[in-house]
Amino acid sequence: MLSTMMQFPLTLTPLLDRVERIFPHVEMVSRRPDTSLHRQTYADFARRSRQLASALRRAGMQPGDRVATLMWNHHAHVEAYFGIPCAGGVLHTLNLRLHPDDLTYIVTHAEDRFVIVDDVLWPLWEKVAPRVAIEKTIVVSWKGGPLPEGVIDYEAFLASGDASEPLPTLDENAPLGMCYTSGTTGKPKGVVYSHRAIVLHSFAVCLTDGLGLSNRDVMLPVVPQFHANAWGLPFASVMAGTKQVLPGPHLDAANLLDLFVREQVTLAAGVPTVWMAILQTLDANPGKYTLTKGMRMLVGGSAAPESMIRGFDRHGAAILHAWGMTELSPLGTVATVKKGIEDGGEDAVYAARSKQGLPSPFVEMRAVSDTGEVPWDGAAQGELQVRGPWVAASYYGTEDTSDRWTEDGWFRTGDVVTIDKDAYLKLTDRTKDLIKSGGEWISSVELENEIMGHPAVAEAAVIAISHPKWVERPLACVVLKPGQSLSFEELREFLKPRVAAWWLPDLVEYVDAIPRTSTGKFLKSALRERFKDLVSNA
Amino acid sequence: MLSTMMQFPLTLTPLLDRVERIFPHVEMVSRRPDTSLHRQTYADFARRSRQLASALRRAGMQPGDRVATLMWNHHAHVEAYFGIPCAGGVLHTLNLRLHPDDLTYIVTHAEDRFVIVDDVLWPLWEKVAPRVAIEKTIVVSWKGGPLPEGVIDYEAFLASGDASEPLPTLDENAPLGMCYTSGTTGKPKGVVYSHRAIVLHSFAVCLTDGLGLSNRDVMLPVVPQFHANAWGLPFASVMAGTKQVLPGPHLDAANLLDLFVREQVTLAAGVPTVWMAILQTLDANPGKYTLTKGMRMLVGGSAAPESMIRGFDRHGAAILHAWGMTELSPLGTVATVKKGIEDGGEDAVYAARSKQGLPSPFVEMRAVSDTGEVPWDGAAQGELQVRGPWVAASYYGTEDTSDRWTEDGWFRTGDVVTIDKDAYLKLTDRTKDLIKSGGEWISSVELENEIMGHPAVAEAAVIAISHPKWVERPLACVVLKPGQSLSFEELREFLKPRVAAWWLPDLVEYVDAIPRTSTGKFLKSALRERFKDLVSNA
Repeated sequence: MLSTMMQFPLTLTPLLDRVERIFPHVEMVSRRPDTSLHRQTYADFARRSRQLASALRRAGMQPGDRVATLMWNHHAHVEAYFGIPCAGGVLHTLNLRLHPDDLTYIVTHAEDRFVIVDDVLWPLWEKVAPRVAIEKTIVVSWKGGPLPEGVIDYEAFLASGDASEPLPTLDENAPLGMCYTSGTTGKPKGVVYSHRAIVLHSFAVCLTDGLGLSNRDVMLPVVPQFHANAWGLPFASVMAGTKQVLPGPHLDAANLLDLFVREQVTLAAGVPTVWMAILQTLDANPGKYTLTKGMRMLVGGSAAPESMIRGFDRHGAAILHAWGMTELSPLGTVATVKKGIEDGGEDAVYAARSKQGLPSPFVEMRAVSDTGEVPWDGAAQGELQVRGPWVAASYYGTEDTSDRWTEDGWFRTGDVVTIDKDAYLKLTDRTKDLIKSGGEWISSVELENEIMGHPAVAEAAVIAISHPKWVERPLACVVLKPGQSLSFEELREFLKPRVAAWWLPDLVEYVDAIPRTSTGKFLKSALRERFKDLVSNA
Repeated sequence: MLSTMMQFPLTLTPLLDRVERIFPHVEMVSRRPDTSLHRQTYADFARRSRQLASALRRAGMQPGDRVATLMWNHHAHVEAYFGIPCAGGVLHTLNLRLHPDDLTYIVTHAEDRFVIVDDVLWPLWEKVAPRVAIEKTIVVSWKGGPLPEGVIDYEAFLASGDASEPLPTLDENAPLGMCYTSGTTGKPKGVVYSHRAIVLHSFAVCLTDGLGLSNRDVMLPVVPQFHANAWGLPFASVMAGTKQVLPGPHLDAANLLDLFVREQVTLAAGVPTVWMAILQTLDANPGKYTLTKGMRMLVGGSAAPESMIRGFDRHGAAILHAWGMTELSPLGTVATVKKGIEDGGEDAVYAARSKQGLPSPFVEMRAVSDTGEVPWDGAAQGELQVRGPWVAASYYGTEDTSDRWTEDGWFRTGDVVTIDKDAYLKLTDRTKDLIKSGGEWISSVELENEIMGHPAVAEAAVIAISHPKWVERPLACVVLKPGQSLSFEELREFLKPRVAAWWLPDLVEYVDAIPRTSTGKFLKSALRERFKDLVSNA
């Protein structure tokens, strides 16, 4: 017996059609580099996306060809999000925070044929351009000056397309876009999203128990469009007919708060450091900014402290925790509060909201330790493994990626987590940062947090060093506050009531600073290199 | 270039896994035939659904085999919704309001192998059973008495299955279930839903701008599970982890209101007659029933009058209008209020809520008249045509269904609609009830509503009669209130300021009653038969 239902592919094209017919007057607002605001409607957006699609095809783009973007968050970038894939091309967003060497590698590896670049990013692009084989360079002109030699203006390029040209029929498994993810080891690796994956991800974002995105929302992505599709929000906003407010290059608290208030933003999304700066500005300027009632602030990238969640509640805004990865399109879990959690009181609600949350429908998760799948008890740690229709099954053009996928087809996230009895996920560490002591796992992140609770400690990182019997034992790398002292024994005494005895560091090293990555995370690989010859005999 | 994403089929099985892992303690409450309440959790539900799946396979059910259900709304019926399809079988819900002759036709046409029947429906089933080739009859015992000869008790059947038996891997396009739709002409026709269609439909139901179904909701389907999947709510509730309250055979206002209050229902769904009875009971018993704050009442099947919407608002409950069909799994549109509508004031909001609403993402709609697609101006009428991934492309086992699908692949709904500039759909008539006068369309429904506005008229139906020049012209069939009179000329004078001159009826016939279908709708085919020889010469 066969189903009698229509074969109707899940591609972006019906979403473009829909927003044009149903939400033509809804706005997209973009902050220009000069801080002025650009406004257009979804009717404009749809017409211009169709023009872009037509222009790309007339310029020779073939199905599956990669078109790179090197842009901030703004309307033209969203046009690229739709115009490129709806024409059958592959949107390849380039991370403007990468070194030109990395960009060169990525553009070459992806075999990008075209690129669309903000003129304000030309100083970066011109370090890459001579080293890659881009055929056509399209420049979005914000400054209005003369364009570099040999490039075409974005508006002139759009004008070469015809918005009434029919869009091609696409397979839902056709590639839609690419993102490269930079591991701490090895070359960047590319994920190729399908139309189907992004459509299903957009449904998940718009679920009431997802991010609840609605046509009544006003969405502002602080998270860059070059970072994991701005968490899928531009796609989902078009699905829902949601007004988009795009901050351009101005990601400071004052400019963001100005947009929140002026455009009545109801859902904004970014990493914790963004929200910390916003919270400080709100606290320092009582009464100056009135946020939209019930505004949600989506936090991802790393964990938000509970104090931040409580802090924003004082301003009438709700921090909403989520977890995702480039390999998951990117959202996997959202920390909505399940019915019944509130029966445990306010602290139980904050505890749930401080975790990374519940998996979306069709995102399956398990936590696996060296001895197999761990129970959902909120205590046992394991590596988070996931699978689902918007999870990557491989990296693009790499030979052997078996270390990232299990034999039974789950993606190994590299995150160490607990899952509690209510199914809330909590990140505890990265697998590479775990200390594996006698077959048991010590979370470096939890140990660091305890050490940093000592009043003499400015910051601390914990790494593994060798041990002849236990294989690995913890080393505490401590930065003391100016004028403070803390002996190894004092540190151990401080920690004893706080962690299991076998978690106590075997050694301490006092350092001037913890090395950091370009995004501000601890660069533990540098510490591991520095202390690679240390051995514990404790 | 190929996408690197996982191939992960959209079937019910991951939803069953998910509700079991993430929402094990959420309840399903069923009203038994004796009006007592049966309670179980989703953990029970998942275990029992797996047992059912295992028992069916052990009993010889092969992939694609049909298993019929003749049941009210209750936990065992939801177990059938999952247990049958997750085992690879096809859930075939039988409409217990049909005549045994029709049921015999449908069971035979579908080639049902097994059936699950409520014991309280045995008097109906025993009129069908001897005439069909069912191999195994499973009876849900509510009354507790001895079962008929040759059948197996549902609980005993479950006990023959093993909940730990792995479920089969299914293709997302595999058939999940069947519903037969009874047209007013011809034999009932079957729609075969795929797993993919129902999964995507469930996503649409859970969208914030869909029905917004959430794990925080408590859902009660008054609409029967044998009618278009209870509008997909049992499936969507399992996706969202929503508590289900299932009213069994007790669909009267007092029993429903008791459940609304007792179980704190937040979303109930049914046809307008149900809500009219509920509203009357609420109005007649001030203070007796306290509905859950913000409760939504989903209305489909036919249009709810604006007065009912306003009436429920007085009780703090929101009528939510939707439109669907068996052929659409069934939901197509929902009358959520788009941002901006409220700028037109309260009347504009009520006007929007009184329409059938906006299409879901991936439901595409157009209105087509004899001269082509009509504009979205809220005035031009056309037949509603739809397409999308949960829309039927054909009927099961019928030879020629070209009259229900256009050459370019759209489903012809048979509904006459307008679509306004905000994209709100409004039903105005059924195509078969339209009066096609000189190439223009007269809505029989609108004309009836105007005639029924006359104080002397109890009810009225308008049908087409022949006309030598205009082809068709309207005949008004009028039932007068007792002791009242209304001449043809008085009726025309009454209508003149209310409708276009060419809409005025050519003739009136006074009748004792308007014939009705078993579900209370006007049976215009009987009037057409009665007056088939009338010809207008006006």
